[in-house]
Amino acid sequence: MKSPCVRDLTDGQLVATMFLVREKEIRISARSGKSWLELSLGDCTGSIPAKMWDNFESIAKTFECDDVVRIRGRVKLYNGSKELTLEQIIPASEKEYELGDFLPHTNCDIEKLWAEVHAVIAGMKNPWLQKLLTSVVDDPDIAPRLKRAPAAMTMHHAYLGGLLEHVVSLIGLAKAVSAHYPELDADLLLTGVVLHDVGKIDELRYQRGIDYSDAGRLLGHISIGAGLVREKCRAIAGFPARLEVLVEHLILSHHGSYEFGSPSLPQIPEAVALHFIDDIDSKMAGMRKTLEHASTGAPDDVWTDRNPSLRRAIIRRDQFLANGSATQPPKKG
Amino acid sequence: MKSPCVRDLTDGQLVATMFLVREKEIRISARSGKSWLELSLGDCTGSIPAKMWDNFESIAKTFECDDVVRIRGRVKLYNGSKELTLEQIIPASEKEYELGDFLPHTNCDIEKLWAEVHAVIAGMKNPWLQKLLTSVVDDPDIAPRLKRAPAAMTMHHAYLGGLLEHVVSLIGLAKAVSAHYPELDADLLLTGVVLHDVGKIDELRYQRGIDYSDAGRLLGHISIGAGLVREKCRAIAGFPARLEVLVEHLILSHHGSYEFGSPSLPQIPEAVALHFIDDIDSKMAGMRKTLEHASTGAPDDVWTDRNPSLRRAIIRRDQFLANGSATQPPKKG
Amino acid sequence: MKSPCVRDLTDGQLVATMFLVREKEIRISARSGKSWLELSLGDCTGSIPAKMWDNFESIAKTFECDDVVRIRGRVKLYNGSKELTLEQIIPASEKEYELGDFLPHTNCDIEKLWAEVHAVIAGMKNPWLQKLLTSVVDDPDIAPRLKRAPAAMTMHHAYLGGLLEHVVSLIGLAKAVSAHYPELDADLLLTGVVLHDVGKIDELRYQRGIDYSDAGRLLGHISIGAGLVREKCRAIAGFPARLEVLVEHLILSHHGSYEFGSPSLPQIPEAVALHFIDDIDSKMAGMRKTLEHASTGAPDDVWTDRNPSLRRAIIRRDQFLANGSATQPPKKG
Amino acid sequence: MKSPCVRDLTDGQLVATMFLVREKEIRISARSGKSWLELSLGDCTGSIPAKMWDNFESIAKTFECDDVVRIRGRVKLYNGSKELTLEQIIPASEKEYELGDFLPHTNCDIEKLWAEVHAVIAGMKNPWLQKLLTSVVDDPDIAPRLKRAPAAMTMHHAYLGGLLEHVVSLIGLAKAVSAHYPELDADLLLTGVVLHDVGKIDELRYQRGIDYSDAGRLLGHISIGAGLVREKCRAIAGFPARLEVLVEHLILSHHGSYEFGSPSLPQIPEAVALHFIDDIDSKMAGMRKTLEHASTGAPDDVWTDRNPSLRRAIIRRDQFLANGSATQPPKKG
Amino acid sequence: MKSPCVRDLTDGQLVATMFLVREKEIRISARSGKSWLELSLGDCTGSIPAKMWDNFESIAKTFECDDVVRIRGRVKLYNGSKELTLEQIIPASEKEYELGDFLPHTNCDIEKLWAEVHAVIAGMKNPWLQKLLTSVVDDPDIAPRLKRAPAAMTMHHAYLGGLLEHVVSLIGLAKAVSAHYPELDADLLLTGVVLHDVGKIDELRYQRGIDYSDAGRLLGHISIGAGLVREKCRAIAGFPARLEVLVEHLILSHHGSYEFGSPSLPQIPEAVALHFIDDIDSKMAGMRKTLEHASTGAPDDVWTDRNPSLRRAIIRRDQFLANGSATQPPKKG
Amino acid sequence: MKSPCVRDLTDGQLVATMFLVREKEIRISARSGKSWLELSLGDCTGSIPAKMWDNFESIAKTFECDDVVRIRGRVKLYNGSKELTLEQIIPASEKEYELGDFLPHTNCDIEKLWAEVHAVIAGMKNPWLQKLLTSVVDDPDIAPRLKRAPAAMTMHHAYLGGLLEHVVSLIGLAKAVSAHYPELDADLLLTGVVLHDVGKIDELRYQRGIDYSDAGRLLGHISIGAGLVREKCRAIAGFPARLEVLVEHLILSHHGSYEFGSPSLPQIPEAVALHFIDDIDSKMAGMRKTLEHASTGAPDDVWTDRNPSLRRAIIRRDQFLANGSATQPPKKG
Repeated sequence: MKSPCVRDLTDGQLVATMFLVREKEIRISARSGKSWLELSLGDCTGSIPAKMWDNFESIAKTFECDDVVRIRGRVKLYNGSKELTLEQIIPASEKEYELGDFLPHTNCDIEKLWAEVHAVIAGMKNPWLQKLLTSVVDDPDIAPRLKRAPAAMTMHHAYLGGLLEHVVSLIGLAKAVSAHYPELDADLLLTGVVLHDVGKIDELRYQRGIDYSDAGRLLGHISIGAGLVREKCRAIAGFPARLEVLVEHLILSHHGSYEFGSPSLPQIPEAVALHFIDDIDSKMAGMRKTLEHASTGAPDDVWTDRNPSLRRAIIRRDQFLANGSATQPPKKG
Repeated sequence: MKSPCVRDLTDGQLVATMFLVREKEIRISARSGKSWLELSLGDCTGSIPAKMWDNFESIAKTFECDDVVRIRGRVKLYNGSKELTLEQIIPASEKEYELGDFLPHTNCDIEKLWAEVHAVIAGMKNPWLQKLLTSVVDDPDIAPRLKRAPAAMTMHHAYLGGLLEHVVSLIGLAKAVSAHYPELDADLLLTGVVLHDVGKIDELRYQRGIDYSDAGRLLGHISIGAGLVREKCRAIAGFPARLEVLVEHLILSHHGSYEFGSPSLPQIPEAVALHFIDDIDSKMAGMRKTLEHASTGAPDDVWTDRNPSLRRAIIRRDQFLANGSATQPPKKG
Repeated sequence: MKSPCVRDLTDGQLVATMFLVREKEIRISARSGKSWLELSLGDCTGSIPAKMWDNFESIAKTFECDDVVRIRGRVKLYNGSKELTLEQIIPASEKEYELGDFLPHTNCDIEKLWAEVHAVIAGMKNPWLQKLLTSVVDDPDIAPRLKRAPAAMTMHHAYLGGLLEHVVSLIGLAKAVSAHYPELDADLLLTGVVLHDVGKIDELRYQRGIDYSDAGRLLGHISIGAGLVREKCRAIAGFPARLEVLVEHLILSHHGSYEFGSPSLPQIPEAVALHFIDDIDSKMAGMRKTLEHASTGAPDDVWTDRNPSLRRAIIRRDQFLANGSATQPPKKG
Repeated sequence: MKSPCVRDLTDGQLVATMFLVREKEIRISARSGKSWLELSLGDCTGSIPAKMWDNFESIAKTFECDDVVRIRGRVKLYNGSKELTLEQIIPASEKEYELGDFLPHTNCDIEKLWAEVHAVIAGMKNPWLQKLLTSVVDDPDIAPRLKRAPAAMTMHHAYLGGLLEHVVSLIGLAKAVSAHYPELDADLLLTGVVLHDVGKIDELRYQRGIDYSDAGRLLGHISIGAGLVREKCRAIAGFPARLEVLVEHLILSHHGSYEFGSPSLPQIPEAVALHFIDDIDSKMAGMRKTLEHASTGAPDDVWTDRNPSLRRAIIRRDQFLANGSATQPPKKG
Repeated sequence: MKSPCVRDLTDGQLVATMFLVREKEIRISARSGKSWLELSLGDCTGSIPAKMWDNFESIAKTFECDDVVRIRGRVKLYNGSKELTLEQIIPASEKEYELGDFLPHTNCDIEKLWAEVHAVIAGMKNPWLQKLLTSVVDDPDIAPRLKRAPAAMTMHHAYLGGLLEHVVSLIGLAKAVSAHYPELDADLLLTGVVLHDVGKIDELRYQRGIDYSDAGRLLGHISIGAGLVREKCRAIAGFPARLEVLVEHLILSHHGSYEFGSPSLPQIPEAVALHFIDDIDSKMAGMRKTLEHASTGAPDDVWTDRNPSLRRAIIRRDQFLANGSATQPPKKG
Repeated sequence: MKSPCVRDLTDGQLVATMFLVREKEIRISARSGKSWLELSLGDCTGSIPAKMWDNFESIAKTFECDDVVRIRGRVKLYNGSKELTLEQIIPASEKEYELGDFLPHTNCDIEKLWAEVHAVIAGMKNPWLQKLLTSVVDDPDIAPRLKRAPAAMTMHHAYLGGLLEHVVSLIGLAKAVSAHYPELDADLLLTGVVLHDVGKIDELRYQRGIDYSDAGRLLGHISIGAGLVREKCRAIAGFPARLEVLVEHLILSHHGSYEFGSPSLPQIPEAVALHFIDDIDSKMAGMRKTLEHASTGAPDDVWTDRNPSLRRAIIRRDQFLANGSATQPPKKG
């Protein structure tokens, strides 16, 4: 990890490090006519506004948004927020830095997650599903993207490695649910778990930021994923056509309803179960993020900010039990 | 179990046994003017139509719907369906029969389920929640009803003991989910599981049939249950008011949205989790029932009847894999 | 065409011909105990109930639903409806009949429609789209199904050849709309027209009846079609990846909204236009069918039956102008 | 009433009075680096921004939001809006002021409203309902809150005493409606009127501002109110259980539909009537507020601002009739 | 009133009277081949099925549905329902009967209702609105239809005179509401009350049955009524154009939302109030009808049939209080 | 066209011309206390902010919003945007300018469009519809407004002449659709096309800006238009009442559903077709505007801004095909 990182900057600190340029604009004061360079600089721990007041014109032409730059400057507090005043900006070459330092990523160990996926595949009894999954995760074109892709733009697991973290969390839930409901075919459900969001490797772009790809907006990860899986099934000699239909069905129906973008509705127990565990995991991850943000921001507040996937705030259980306003009618005696 | 039961009757069989009268009507043929007594008789294994052609007038006055009667008659096949032609009907006294023989009930052992609930309560670390649950399940007015109540009218677990079976299934899921997401307070979630549908002991009537009570239709099980729990909390000296609010919140919000009758929306992770596991368990139970019905009805059919809670048919995985019409484009070589 | 056909049967007519067995059941009179064989027989002009009263037991075992049988019997009028009383039923062998005589089909000449599709392809300026369409319509596995498939189960064009008739109607609309709005790329829109419902060749079954295939219910024609097109694009060396994305986008978005099963929403003008002309053509075809049915049924009625796609009745313009109840306030002088 | 109040401040006026601190922040000019104290000060007539430029650091630590402070300063006009420049800020002690001066409250006389509620109770013929209402309004824990609570956060009656004002307005409507429809049980309807929003005394906080309580957000006033009423009924020896069910039903169903947070739907005429008069009164009060605001703001405007409960603007009848743009086609002759 | 009427027929009674023919069909027994004439006969008190077994062929050609016929026959009980066996049917001429005897009509005195409308108009202070209403109710083409029209097909006031009864009920509510909310312009609200449904005189047909007119289905009573009122306003020299806009607005917006067919939304307080009192009156009338039906049908039942406008059953308060199943947890001590 | 126009202004340019005043405000700097006059000035090519720093007080009183003023000043670039610094502002008299120079208008030749409408009317076979249309377009009170009115406030054709341009575009579509579906009555459909939005001449105000009229907001263009057409029909001696009903039906139902403000639903094929071609034309015009805006703004961007009627962005086909991020899985070999 590069040092210092955004999260650790303090007022008055002199800083010489690299940042990713997230926003870049030249502004002019309406009154004084004076212009300056306004940037948003970031790394995997956050973002900070930065200003360069003098001699920025030629420098500004040497880099663009999403470039990494080497800067020198000093931290100031304005209205309680940290801001950088820059003296120097030099574009960095790709060899100088680790791009991973500049984008948020999972706290989990990617290789451990990856090993869990492989362990699941190794443990399967259905040879066709095993072959199918192997052909996906061992595809050298797919594997690195599967390890790197986020699971979403904003809602949950919106960071590098988020997709894999989400899949491994679902593996745990799928095992528990399969053990609970013996009518479920565990291999089929686990296949749905590993493949349900595989289209996100193409739906999103996650090289120097997280965004939709053009094809992602035009097709969506559900259709992209179903297409990829169809291709993989058909590349396996003798793969049963009806089993392929069930696997595609799991992918197509995993959003659970037309309104949420599934073009077909769950029609086997495994598809219903996959939809539910996917939904619960994304909601739990979203709440975890909201609660973590609250605990760093305002440690005593009883309510969090609005959670985007639930469209409401969450109450912080422990803070409420300690400090909340219960306003209950009094107990009798 | 009384013998014979509806499920086992065969064409031509002479029958002398007891049944519950589910429907009773005197009909007259529009053309011939001849009248007869038309009944629907049942026990816990099903229902059968029955007709009495002669001398039924005075007999018909001796019993009503929901009474148990002792009959004599013979099974006939009409249009492929079994039907009873009755010679004798005598009202049975309550001492003669076991009412449980006449209503559908869970296949599980009620006392084992009950023991699982007690084990969960015994294992709790939070003394207040433990006291609350104990005060509910040990209440001699509540316990027998909690053991007997169905979980629903029609959708899922719609039989005696269904509520308890559903609660115990949720206990299993809640333990798995709590283990998976350490941010969940397992005791709080389990408290929600045990109490979420407790209002159904009053919302439904399940003495000689399964129906809504008047109060059930006017208030709903969510409000009835929240009221019961409030009462129990306040009967425990020193029960923390804010903890009571959280427990009531779990009950009130467990349907997940206003449209499904929850007057408040899940605002703690345990409430979100409770809503999801309740939903998945009711859907899984509903599918299980649909699939079982299909396997007894038409063992080779690929599709089941319409599942009422999903509002669609389910495909039978194994039948489809064996016989379904995949109509896939042919593989290349 | 076989003779006589269902549409032309008259009261008292002695009939010896072939029909497709649509429904088959043995019924028993509840009162008399007498049983009979109840059938629904049909050909491409309609259906008629049929009964066999005597000696049907062994005959009934020689054929099943969807078989073609040779019958002898007489037409009777019961309650104003025609019904057949059968004396003889003999299974027909596949060589004896033309299956097309027994299913409803388009009134258009399939080969003429097919020539129109080829003419459109021949006239295209974009060589990639031309190659793509050629590879689809000249595929010997696809062509016969594209000529035979209906466009829907019930709503519109629900007969053999209906899909092709619908496509050719859309070709006419697409040409008019492209001429009207020069910003539209005519080749792209026409490609969408020819391919938008191609998945229906697999979504539906239309050998001896019109029904969904299992894969059709599990995947839907939109996803099936997008997959087929992807495969065809990738089989063309050098097919531009971005053009493939646009063609798939046209197929995926042509239902116009999530609620109607499109997993992505129209995001180019050609996709918006395709959605609209597809919608208008299905509504116009549905109304045409409703109006035709009304004109044969009750020629003087002002209102038709309920149109299933509009979910309302249609007023028959000319009948209304001649006979309707305007109940307008009177004109002054 | 303290003097001067916010509503009456004029440009240039020297002010020495007390205000409630609604917002408090220290700001720094990005350009000059100069910092200042930015407040929002208010009383029951409105709010005004205030700035302190010098020596505010130690003063700012002596008070918080929701405190009452004694200030000295001068009114200035900035961009047409009044603003205070402060010279002095001293925290006020609770004895120095009347909190009621600092929060908006009803224009009605609370004691008169209270007397009307008592008169209604006194006039009841049903002794059980009379006892129930008496036990609520004479409860020393409830009465002061019932007199003080607002009826809502923002929509209508969003000021101290608003709940009581709303209840008394409904009493008038309930009497008129009961007289109009003799099938209504006036006592039952009036009981519903008095109790329907009683849960708001706990759902909201209204000591130094109007906000939801934590319990209010987690449970909602409908469930809180139903619980309170249940408790009161059960404290009355012999209160008929079925009458209690009807009263709770009135409370639970008064929002009229699931979507608006009622967990049960109106199933007696009194519940339907209660829902309607509650709805009309809240809409009329909301419109009255919108119209009053318009008449003080821009006396000649034909349209008001957007009314939040109707989600549209209201046209001001008299202004429209005088000045509106009818753009009607001209009359002939 | 003609005698006997349908409501008073008893088993075995010999009947010679007139009825309106509501349905007419010739049926044939599938088994015996015997045919008969099946009718539904009615008057303003209800309907009864009737059969003629012999010599009906030529008689059946002498009358049609909606004709009045003179019959002779005997009442029989079939399956607990009354039915007529006819010996004679003779078409009646229009001079022989009072058509009003054969259609359901209001229990109120039409002339008294009419006088109330005139009294309201006479009491108006706004001369333009007074002139407008007078020009409508004194229009000899409108008055008789306004006195005769029902207010709806099925939901509420679905009988002759129902529209006027509904308007007069609204007059009472409008007066009460205007007195309660002084910001309402009583004359404007009352004008809306008298005119809001005036389009129903053309939307419905109510000569010998109650049905929609063709123009009614194509245009709807809201647009028909707005057009009629516009015409009437413009026929009054000098009628203020802006006042006309407000009156039309009341009519157009009185259904309250687009979904219920209003092309504009209430934007003055009088329009909001009109929508509410119209809604409450139709719901109250619908419930009254449902409750009356229950009290004649099954006097001890606690629940009514499903109320069509509420889409739920109503509980009968007094029956519930006497017999309902409260299933409340027992009181302590 | 006046010169220079907003679109052509360049940095540093000295400007003396006329503009329409769209916004006008006096602002004061919070810090310096200095005030200035802030305007938004515009003509038919766009808008530009303008400031006057000195001696503006008395000048500011001589004009209001929507006035045309003669100004002198200089263009400056602030933060990359053009702005005017004014030295002089003099109100212009109505004789000095052409109001059309100051509002956006169609690029089409109004008189040519007008001639197309007349040609359509001249070509009609139905004499009544021809008379009706002639009486509308030749009405000297209507014609100039029909030529000037925009078709909408913001969505599509939101400029002077937009309504006529939209109608003429629909004429083209209606001809194509009528030729395609012979069951359509071309004259009736074209009548609907010409009249469907005629109410917009009164719903909107378009003298010196585009806004709703008061009557427009209260009644809506659908009801205004239906009323106007009714009046015109009734002014034609002998106009068939039922034909009038059909024409009004076309206008009332052309939004296609209640939710979009149609008080009746399309019930003839011409009404269904009118709804569809109106919808497609407004969507196509809206997309054209969005695409044009994108091509002037950021010529290389692949995506446009959000299109307001589709509520999503449009992808620019050619830019995507050239530069988009397809992120497709690589082709095999």
